Amino acid sequence: MDIELFEGLIDLALKEDMPAGDITSESIIPADSVSRALFLAKEEGVLAGIDVARRVFEKIDPSVSFIKMLEDGRSFGPGDILARLEGSSISLLKGERTALNFMQRMSGIATKTRTFVDAVEGTKTKILDTRKTTPGLRLLEKYAVRMGGGVNHRFSLSDMALIKDTHLEIIGSVSEAVKRARAGTAPGVSVEVEVTGFAGAREAMESGADMVMLDNMPLDKMKEVVDWIGGRAPVEVSGKITVESARKIAALGVDFISVGALTHSFRSIDISLEFEGRSGR
Amino acid sequence: MDIELFEGLIDLALKEDMPAGDITSESIIPADSVSRALFLAKEEGVLAGIDVARRVFEKIDPSVSFIKMLEDGRSFGPGDILARLEGSSISLLKGERTALNFMQRMSGIATKTRTFVDAVEGTKTKILDTRKTTPGLRLLEKYAVRMGGGVNHRFSLSDMALIKDTHLEIIGSVSEAVKRARAGTAPGVSVEVEVTGFAGAREAMESGADMVMLDNMPLDKMKEVVDWIGGRAPVEVSGKITVESARKIAALGVDFISVGALTHSFRSIDISLEFEGRSGR
Amino acid sequence: MDIELFEGLIDLALKEDMPAGDITSESIIPADSVSRALFLAKEEGVLAGIDVARRVFEKIDPSVSFIKMLEDGRSFGPGDILARLEGSSISLLKGERTALNFMQRMSGIATKTRTFVDAVEGTKTKILDTRKTTPGLRLLEKYAVRMGGGVNHRFSLSDMALIKDTHLEIIGSVSEAVKRARAGTAPGVSVEVEVTGFAGAREAMESGADMVMLDNMPLDKMKEVVDWIGGRAPVEVSGKITVESARKIAALGVDFISVGALTHSFRSIDISLEFEGRSGR
Amino acid sequence: MDIELFEGLIDLALKEDMPAGDITSESIIPADSVSRALFLAKEEGVLAGIDVARRVFEKIDPSVSFIKMLEDGRSFGPGDILARLEGSSISLLKGERTALNFMQRMSGIATKTRTFVDAVEGTKTKILDTRKTTPGLRLLEKYAVRMGGGVNHRFSLSDMALIKDTHLEIIGSVSEAVKRARAGTAPGVSVEVEVTGFAGAREAMESGADMVMLDNMPLDKMKEVVDWIGGRAPVEVSGKITVESARKIAALGVDFISVGALTHSFRSIDISLEFEGRSGR
Amino acid sequence: MDIELFEGLIDLALKEDMPAGDITSESIIPADSVSRALFLAKEEGVLAGIDVARRVFEKIDPSVSFIKMLEDGRSFGPGDILARLEGSSISLLKGERTALNFMQRMSGIATKTRTFVDAVEGTKTKILDTRKTTPGLRLLEKYAVRMGGGVNHRFSLSDMALIKDTHLEIIGSVSEAVKRARAGTAPGVSVEVEVTGFAGAREAMESGADMVMLDNMPLDKMKEVVDWIGGRAPVEVSGKITVESARKIAALGVDFISVGALTHSFRSIDISLEFEGRSGR
Amino acid sequence: MDIELFEGLIDLALKEDMPAGDITSESIIPADSVSRALFLAKEEGVLAGIDVARRVFEKIDPSVSFIKMLEDGRSFGPGDILARLEGSSISLLKGERTALNFMQRMSGIATKTRTFVDAVEGTKTKILDTRKTTPGLRLLEKYAVRMGGGVNHRFSLSDMALIKDTHLEIIGSVSEAVKRARAGTAPGVSVEVEVTGFAGAREAMESGADMVMLDNMPLDKMKEVVDWIGGRAPVEVSGKITVESARKIAALGVDFISVGALTHSFRSIDISLEFEGRSGR
Repeated sequence: MDIELFEGLIDLALKEDMPAGDITSESIIPADSVSRALFLAKEEGVLAGIDVARRVFEKIDPSVSFIKMLEDGRSFGPGDILARLEGSSISLLKGERTALNFMQRMSGIATKTRTFVDAVEGTKTKILDTRKTTPGLRLLEKYAVRMGGGVNHRFSLSDMALIKDTHLEIIGSVSEAVKRARAGTAPGVSVEVEVTGFAGAREAMESGADMVMLDNMPLDKMKEVVDWIGGRAPVEVSGKITVESARKIAALGVDFISVGALTHSFRSIDISLEFEGRSGR
Repeated sequence: MDIELFEGLIDLALKEDMPAGDITSESIIPADSVSRALFLAKEEGVLAGIDVARRVFEKIDPSVSFIKMLEDGRSFGPGDILARLEGSSISLLKGERTALNFMQRMSGIATKTRTFVDAVEGTKTKILDTRKTTPGLRLLEKYAVRMGGGVNHRFSLSDMALIKDTHLEIIGSVSEAVKRARAGTAPGVSVEVEVTGFAGAREAMESGADMVMLDNMPLDKMKEVVDWIGGRAPVEVSGKITVESARKIAALGVDFISVGALTHSFRSIDISLEFEGRSGR
Repeated sequence: MDIELFEGLIDLALKEDMPAGDITSESIIPADSVSRALFLAKEEGVLAGIDVARRVFEKIDPSVSFIKMLEDGRSFGPGDILARLEGSSISLLKGERTALNFMQRMSGIATKTRTFVDAVEGTKTKILDTRKTTPGLRLLEKYAVRMGGGVNHRFSLSDMALIKDTHLEIIGSVSEAVKRARAGTAPGVSVEVEVTGFAGAREAMESGADMVMLDNMPLDKMKEVVDWIGGRAPVEVSGKITVESARKIAALGVDFISVGALTHSFRSIDISLEFEGRSGR
Repeated sequence: MDIELFEGLIDLALKEDMPAGDITSESIIPADSVSRALFLAKEEGVLAGIDVARRVFEKIDPSVSFIKMLEDGRSFGPGDILARLEGSSISLLKGERTALNFMQRMSGIATKTRTFVDAVEGTKTKILDTRKTTPGLRLLEKYAVRMGGGVNHRFSLSDMALIKDTHLEIIGSVSEAVKRARAGTAPGVSVEVEVTGFAGAREAMESGADMVMLDNMPLDKMKEVVDWIGGRAPVEVSGKITVESARKIAALGVDFISVGALTHSFRSIDISLEFEGRSGR
Repeated sequence: MDIELFEGLIDLALKEDMPAGDITSESIIPADSVSRALFLAKEEGVLAGIDVARRVFEKIDPSVSFIKMLEDGRSFGPGDILARLEGSSISLLKGERTALNFMQRMSGIATKTRTFVDAVEGTKTKILDTRKTTPGLRLLEKYAVRMGGGVNHRFSLSDMALIKDTHLEIIGSVSEAVKRARAGTAPGVSVEVEVTGFAGAREAMESGADMVMLDNMPLDKMKEVVDWIGGRAPVEVSGKITVESARKIAALGVDFISVGALTHSFRSIDISLEFEGRSGR
Repeated sequence: MDIELFEGLIDLALKEDMPAGDITSESIIPADSVSRALFLAKEEGVLAGIDVARRVFEKIDPSVSFIKMLEDGRSFGPGDILARLEGSSISLLKGERTALNFMQRMSGIATKTRTFVDAVEGTKTKILDTRKTTPGLRLLEKYAVRMGGGVNHRFSLSDMALIKDTHLEIIGSVSEAVKRARAGTAPGVSVEVEVTGFAGAREAMESGADMVMLDNMPLDKMKEVVDWIGGRAPVEVSGKITVESARKIAALGVDFISVGALTHSFRSIDISLEFEGRSGR
């Protein structure tokens, strides 16, 4: 993990949680108290964010020892130890919540992604994320998607041309839109067109789109389009995908299914920091 | 809403989504194209973030007109119009996703909070949030909790003493912990003690704690403790609360129920930006 | 000391004093010249800021050795050595003024605080600071107050409800103000009311205020109120306190005396960096 | 006043005082309450910082009206109105302390400076500040010195060569130091030498120093040196200057007296924000 | 021009040039002096940066009037007026150098780009920039390239896969490299391969590369490859391109020629700000 | 080199070039692949920026070994090795372009400066830079000028009074301008006057200017003025200086020649990073 991409965000999180220190721990716990603690999974999931958790403690107190027991991307079950920590009790208490806030969310995204990835196993279909990410955390959430086995769609409005229904309503013509997008963007920038029916898909293909997105189409219509395209361009399917529908859509032979819920409606995975008491330093 | 608290975050989100502009819209849509659009609810919920959405467009293009049709904190149903926008088509397209990413998440939190608030209606119990918030977005998420009718618990480790089980394991004595917390923090700083049984609650009360948190206790034990405290200090209940359990716990006469899931496991509310086509400016 | 809270401020100070290096030392002193130097007290005082001074040099040149001879919070007299430094002469010269600007001010605050703390010794009264701090340096100055033996009052407008005369003039009623403050703030947030006479104090107590502040009252009136409250709530006294008046007010049995002058009108303590000449590295 | 130089500092101060709003005013005062208020001097002084105060309110709420009654650099007496404000009561309450924290300190510096400037009136001597300023606030404090009638010495280690005793101890020779400083700095950069006796002053003059600083010399020695230099270079006197000694030193015909206490040991001037009650908007 | 993308850079430039104001103008010019001035071209060129220049003055003083006489992307000759300004003389003097530093460089890049674009006129070849841009100014310089008629290549290492000779030396196989790049990047990310001979080009085409870059090949070899590819994929040529060689390479029918010198070795265009004297406001 | 002055700029450059990593190298190159590489000069020049290059790699990956073979300020020829690197292949690839973008530009400036310095060798004339630097990179470019043997002119509008023709047109009188500049700036601030003929130079000298700048004067006029001044004040010559004209002007005995082109129209020096293949770690 390229931890340097997330330095600013970790700093922000620590400042947010400790604008003026941890007044409870600092007033109660002796400065020389030392503890051992474990990051423990309380349910099943896929790990993401262990290096962010480690960096949280490094920033608070470089003398805390943090030993990873599992790498990001690996599955765990309830009771599995994710990391072992030892160091100043106050430092461990200070970092606990911030580290968990990162790791539980990121593992939530990785776990949700894995469910979709598992659902399409055995097909050629890949699970994509979207731009429906938490403001300010896109890079982090897209990393978590990768840890779950998903593939990242475009990172921003600046790095790929995706012509959506709204663009088409304003322009009126798919071929004109593709032509302008091709002319107005850098070489190597792909042009994808979102369509909602056969006519749109045909126009997109004939205009030379690099990729076609079928949005909210019924399964039978989708099949018709996918068969007609016949592998001449990658096909992406989007629109309120569930694990069940993903399986059926994948069976049609589409290349990608994009799932906004990976990042907009996941559930945090239950992980806790369990203290083992004062060690005998 | 104190929008100035969120300027930095909105800037970050816009930079993240448009490091180098919106290459699709800029290459396809004429610079003088003007559109009207509506923020439309696609399901039931409680609104939060409408002013953040407005600020997103203001930052992109001050000439976009944004008329709020609903204020934060109000309920809406599918088909309800949340705001009316008019302005440069490119500007509307640029702000769409970022505005939605804020508003859908914030409304998700407000809506989830409202469900809990409704569940305890008619009792004196208030629904609290926790520090289990998205890193960097705590203020925003706590605002959304308030819009849902919830009450904010402490904002950070710096503004209230909350003595948890881990502190007690290290210190050994509730009364010593309360004494040290009292001595080591500013006047006016409340001291709350987390307990898991009757003995702990008694010791907390006798040590002069300002507030007692009952963590993960069975309902009958909880009742025993609440009755014994008898209003001498506010009582907070925490630990994997559901809408159903919230109702039963509220019936015991507790003051607060804190629900981590308000901010760690909510679902984005479905809202969309519907374009009405080019207007005749 | 949580030095990470002050990293940004130290960076700012160094950039301010050296936007483009130290043109005198860099042009005059050989790059390989090494010096020893002492931070020496030139008058009596209480130390605060020694770790900030150390961090200043660490940032300029990690190879400078900085050995603390005294910890923050300890008293010193003229001639006392506060720290011993050794390293590149240029590095020592670069950090001298910035380190002193921090340490002299912080020790000035700690020393002024100690004078007040000593004045109330033997009573239960504690000396509080206020929000009358230098813009941008509040955390640092409140740390210095603690080093002088004082206790920190609220850190900001966000972390405690303090109902002042202006609020009351607008609202009209103490009890209404307390009620609203209680309802509108998080659980555990204390509500303090500033009063200027017996009637106000009584209304505050009857409204359930957590703390009462007696502002600018004559000593005999103050006594009357303190006796009537009789320990039912902590009492704070404020308003142009001097060392002499502090002693008399403390004798009345008040809990806190808040002194704006601790941070708004202190005097820097005279400390200097004395070079011992080039060492024989 | 170039207010844009201070935007960052004002933002920092507001964030520090309101990380999450003003919980007292927001919970107590109706959002539509409007007040009039006056910045009122409570003692004599010289004004500095009125534009910073205005900017504080502009940032909180652009709809607050702020009418200056006095400009920076003008004297005032107790009871003088410095500015008239009208606007949202909550906005006025939010900005009060931060505006005062700036204006009271800055006026404290301007007032202290004026005392020294008055003491040397009728002579050619000018009062200089030093680099002994509050970390992060140097530009602001140097502005306040100018408002008091003082003149700014160098702003940082980067903009003038000032050869001090420590430099000379390491180098050994004044003439060598001046030569190196001249060669190693940009054209137009002045070279000043700090001396403590006649010999040093002579060597500095003979080496072609642009300015000579007499540090901590007795008055008679000082006179001897000043007479000998005879106007061939500007002479600055420094070292624990008081108002009384400034008068005597000025009488010797020196060009500049630098006074560290202007910025390191001033006293805040008593100014308050007086509310006139709700206005009938 | 999306001026909001450059706010931070303009702020940085102004701070760099005026850390503490313009001491010459502020001390010499009366505060109420008003001037008219013209941005005047002193030689031929293509304009870029006029909106940046305008923003520079807006930030210094919003009351300065700035009327553009020419838009970015348009050609000008010596004596042409680019903009007319009127406002505070001090404000005009403060912004002069910073505005010119931006506009002269950006116009330098646009002008150099135009020379190459003109050289390939009548062919299908487009002129591309590279990542050889000034650190921190990439977006600005790529904008200038567009104003000169050029097309932007990838913006960063994050938005396109470009397999260079070094990658191939480490991996050993073009087809393996393309396969991994395809698998490891988001859908829609193009994969370009840099080759130096026929064999490489063939392997790239057979591996399904989206684009082929011919690096530093002799013209006859280049022709052979271009003919063989025959339009099946876009071809880019790179490597020490001059205006003369560009013409010849374009004649071969390549799609793109990338020219590092556009941004790494341009010459500033001579533009000046001519004052017309005090106007009679 | 004071690398801490450039930390922010290096961070900016890295973020700009890798907002989301290096997608090519990360997908293609095995994470444990290790390479050796050389920074190799491809043409003659003067080195500047080697420490910036080193810091680029340190920030990406502290485990990369970077051994400098040449120091800034030294000349090199084609084939000379500037530094030897060894470490993770991916890390080397990530830093390559950013390190080169810094080092090639900085060496370009140093090399151009050296050409002018060589041209005036044997005279007392020094080569000065100007404020015509790349926005945001002034400190870095002025450092490069020093490495080429040049001398830095003022850094900003805040650190020296330079009265230009525009100032004089507004004020009307040289002596009045000098008087005001002297009075309105700090002691030790030099006052330089730009003149275009003998009359101006005489007025400047009689007004007590510290330095005179002859702008765009013919050589014979220049000689007349220089002879008349006769060393009473340093003389600077400016205005479209070439290597040839510099030689002739220097022969007149002027103190300084300032050359805007050093920083506004240099050419990047060709340096490359040559990989030696995977090493056997």
